Amino acid sequence: MHVDIITVLPELLNSPLSHSIMKRAQDKGLLTVNTHNLRQWAVNEYGQVDDYQYGGGAGMVMMCEPLVNAIESLQKERKYDEIIYLTPDGKTLDQQMANQLSLNENLLLICGHYKGIDERIREHYITKEVSIGDYVLSGGELAAAVLVDAIGRLLPGVLNDETSALTDSFQDHLLAPPVYTRPAEYKGWKVPDVLLSGDPKKIDDWRHEMAIDRTRQRRPDIYKKHEE
Amino acid sequence: MHVDIITVLPELLNSPLSHSIMKRAQDKGLLTVNTHNLRQWAVNEYGQVDDYQYGGGAGMVMMCEPLVNAIESLQKERKYDEIIYLTPDGKTLDQQMANQLSLNENLLLICGHYKGIDERIREHYITKEVSIGDYVLSGGELAAAVLVDAIGRLLPGVLNDETSALTDSFQDHLLAPPVYTRPAEYKGWKVPDVLLSGDPKKIDDWRHEMAIDRTRQRRPDIYKKHEE
Repeated sequence: MHVDIITVLPELLNSPLSHSIMKRAQDKGLLTVNTHNLRQWAVNEYGQVDDYQYGGGAGMVMMCEPLVNAIESLQKERKYDEIIYLTPDGKTLDQQMANQLSLNENLLLICGHYKGIDERIREHYITKEVSIGDYVLSGGELAAAVLVDAIGRLLPGVLNDETSALTDSFQDHLLAPPVYTRPAEYKGWKVPDVLLSGDPKKIDDWRHEMAIDRTRQRRPDIYKKHEE
Repeated sequence: MHVDIITVLPELLNSPLSHSIMKRAQDKGLLTVNTHNLRQWAVNEYGQVDDYQYGGGAGMVMMCEPLVNAIESLQKERKYDEIIYLTPDGKTLDQQMANQLSLNENLLLICGHYKGIDERIREHYITKEVSIGDYVLSGGELAAAVLVDAIGRLLPGVLNDETSALTDSFQDHLLAPPVYTRPAEYKGWKVPDVLLSGDPKKIDDWRHEMAIDRTRQRRPDIYKKHEE
């Protein structure tokens, strides 16, 4: 998979994209991520990419022209499956959307900043609007990093068995069961006996039951989907 | 506000915490964020902080002892309002939670990795479990960065008028209305006349109407809360 990211703050993305599983995915050649500074396509020598909003009010708006030039310039190099704008009023990212997006070959992500991008870009260029949650961030960069991480780890070959995604939360509309490691007793707090029993069937049953309990208790909304 | 973050990958957090509004908040002395490498509190000279999970299965689990030593060592320096574990089965972060958390003075964030942390830490040390959304990430680091950003920008004095949080999405259970900037016509696509009218009352009414339309259409769940 190839991901291009258009941003006014490419440096903010440096460390999230160059460590841990994102690094591994790129080292293995399974994922390439390029960040592009929108100011390359600025409308003047001062690097202007934003302007005051029509109708007044606090907050700058990212202008059409630099964004269109950036998008069209990158489109000359590859065909994108989706051009995604990260915005709090987009469709909320969940594991199912991450699974679907991980099947694409080329994604172009656009990070908003300030009050966001000119609506005309959203209408005419963006193919998908994604929100990582119901909260506002300083910009779309962290949202892009989250999206790339959530998708990137699902690409075949990125995770080894040790970090397998199959038993993750949400994959079966269930939260993950509790996990424990050594020692079996710590400060008088014991690991549940069943996990020490060595009986794989019992352990599986217990984990499934705990996953169901936890999901019903914490996320009845997700549990409903599990039942369907 | 002071935030401590315990992580096995402090370097992943470098760039998100040192740019843009997070940098400004720290430069102004309104926010301090310290990352702490959990390996300082490893159980042996190899820096071990995780171990196989009881009951078998893919994925390592972060051990009790290093985490307890890390938490208790940091607690000697300050009293935390909350000890937060970032986990996909936590309570989902939203703007209301961000608002509430921004009122605290000292937060301790714990980033999980691999399959997560030993359940006994969750039972006995963690005071709040937070998820940034219904998807799985490689680790809690990006989630911590998102949480610090969402909270940090709400601290009084961090945002100036240009980036005011008052008109952000979610603050009134409404999504933000569309925004436009110059030029008034681009490729034949025009800015709505009302925004060029110079009539503040009309503009306000239009924005409110658009915010309501957009919220009803895209997020009926949020619109319900607005109506309440």
